[in-house]
Amino acid sequence: MTEILHGRLYGVSLGPGDPGLITRRAYEILQRPDADWAYPVRRKGDASYALQIALAAGLTPPVFSAALVFPMTHDPALLAGYWQGAAETVLERLRAGRDVLFLAEGDVSTYSTFIHLSRTVAALEPGIAIQALPGVPSFNAAAARLDMPLADSDETMAIIPAGYGIAMIERVLADFDTLVLLKVKPLLDDLIDFLERRGLLATSAFVEKAGTPEERVEHDLTRLRGERVNYLSLLLVKNPGRPRGELRRGCRKKTAAA
Amino acid sequence: MTEILHGRLYGVSLGPGDPGLITRRAYEILQRPDADWAYPVRRKGDASYALQIALAAGLTPPVFSAALVFPMTHDPALLAGYWQGAAETVLERLRAGRDVLFLAEGDVSTYSTFIHLSRTVAALEPGIAIQALPGVPSFNAAAARLDMPLADSDETMAIIPAGYGIAMIERVLADFDTLVLLKVKPLLDDLIDFLERRGLLATSAFVEKAGTPEERVEHDLTRLRGERVNYLSLLLVKNPGRPRGELRRGCRKKTAAA
Repeated sequence: MTEILHGRLYGVSLGPGDPGLITRRAYEILQRPDADWAYPVRRKGDASYALQIALAAGLTPPVFSAALVFPMTHDPALLAGYWQGAAETVLERLRAGRDVLFLAEGDVSTYSTFIHLSRTVAALEPGIAIQALPGVPSFNAAAARLDMPLADSDETMAIIPAGYGIAMIERVLADFDTLVLLKVKPLLDDLIDFLERRGLLATSAFVEKAGTPEERVEHDLTRLRGERVNYLSLLLVKNPGRPRGELRRGCRKKTAAA
Repeated sequence: MTEILHGRLYGVSLGPGDPGLITRRAYEILQRPDADWAYPVRRKGDASYALQIALAAGLTPPVFSAALVFPMTHDPALLAGYWQGAAETVLERLRAGRDVLFLAEGDVSTYSTFIHLSRTVAALEPGIAIQALPGVPSFNAAAARLDMPLADSDETMAIIPAGYGIAMIERVLADFDTLVLLKVKPLLDDLIDFLERRGLLATSAFVEKAGTPEERVEHDLTRLRGERVNYLSLLLVKNPGRPRGELRRGCRKKTAAA
């Protein structure tokens, strides 16, 4: 009698789209001939953006590679059903002793479907080994492209889905030197008005599909008024005039307290 | 008469330390035989952490590679002098038509000396072409290692040098699902007390030298009380009980406004 060891689930970050931004570790593991692939799609039959990144890098999918459906919905019951289905597909391979490489665009810890997949797999089969390989997040690619640092020295930085609204963004502006506002599409005009009112238009920029071949950059935000933009759009806002509090630093413990 | 074209300055992100986390693009460009290297050191004669990452990846420095001093000080006049010196060293090569690859640990847009170098070079010689290659930030490596997502779905995330103090951290906690607290060393005990008071110890973790071979992870923060930790230490704090406002999302513009 031999015991079959379960396979390991890897979350493989592929970066924002440019195949050059895949890490060496991710590229290497995706060349393993003895591991299965899984990748997210929004709907059955749709192309997978994560898979496209791997193909653009010249990688070849193994015999077994599964498209897992993660739909664009916010209905918790519906989502839970899809997560369960995705986890069961992956678990079947893991229980057969196969390692499964889940392909994720961007970084697996940052707004990734891997978070739901790994959580559901761990709940269904607590003993499974799961390993996340970090990658380049899309907003780091956006910042590099724009030549706008995300954070320097003692700066603070906030990443916020813009849908929380202008009042919330205005509130946190007092404490942050950089704002990365995600999913700006539904309230872009309001955001432009807000940035103009606060004198921040000159230190803000817009990026659509950061780090992908269709990337679009706009430094003059007023040109975007009334325009339709892609769902994957962000605003990078630098807040240079922020009055900062006193900073406690250095190597001493329990000193310099106010 | 021929005009010598200036070289291009590249900011090459190497990730947090593990040579597997270098991107394919960075690895490729560092194999160019016709480009010079520059890398940061804290003091003249010190080892360069960025250079060590490249060497650990099996890369070989070119004939010309320069250590640029970026000292650990907050004196603005002193810093400006060192930035000027570093920029002049690099400019000499760029003006001779050589491309210069500046090696940066982590991501060049996130708390990197490249921000100062590129800004100073651009100020001294406005026509110079500068290109930043994004990389894996240390806190993304920390999150992957800890199996603690930085941000999921509609979550918000803040990155804060802890030295701004407990009052500031407490204030922003109302609006953020994840806090990444950097440089926690000088006030670690106060931070642990604060997290305990707010019932957040169980959803927080400590990482020292994230993504490096000396990485240290501690999930039980109470064990760190009174301990000396490294300068490169962070706390990852998840704030699961946060009451959230209404989120405006979807594809419609100018609808669903409150």
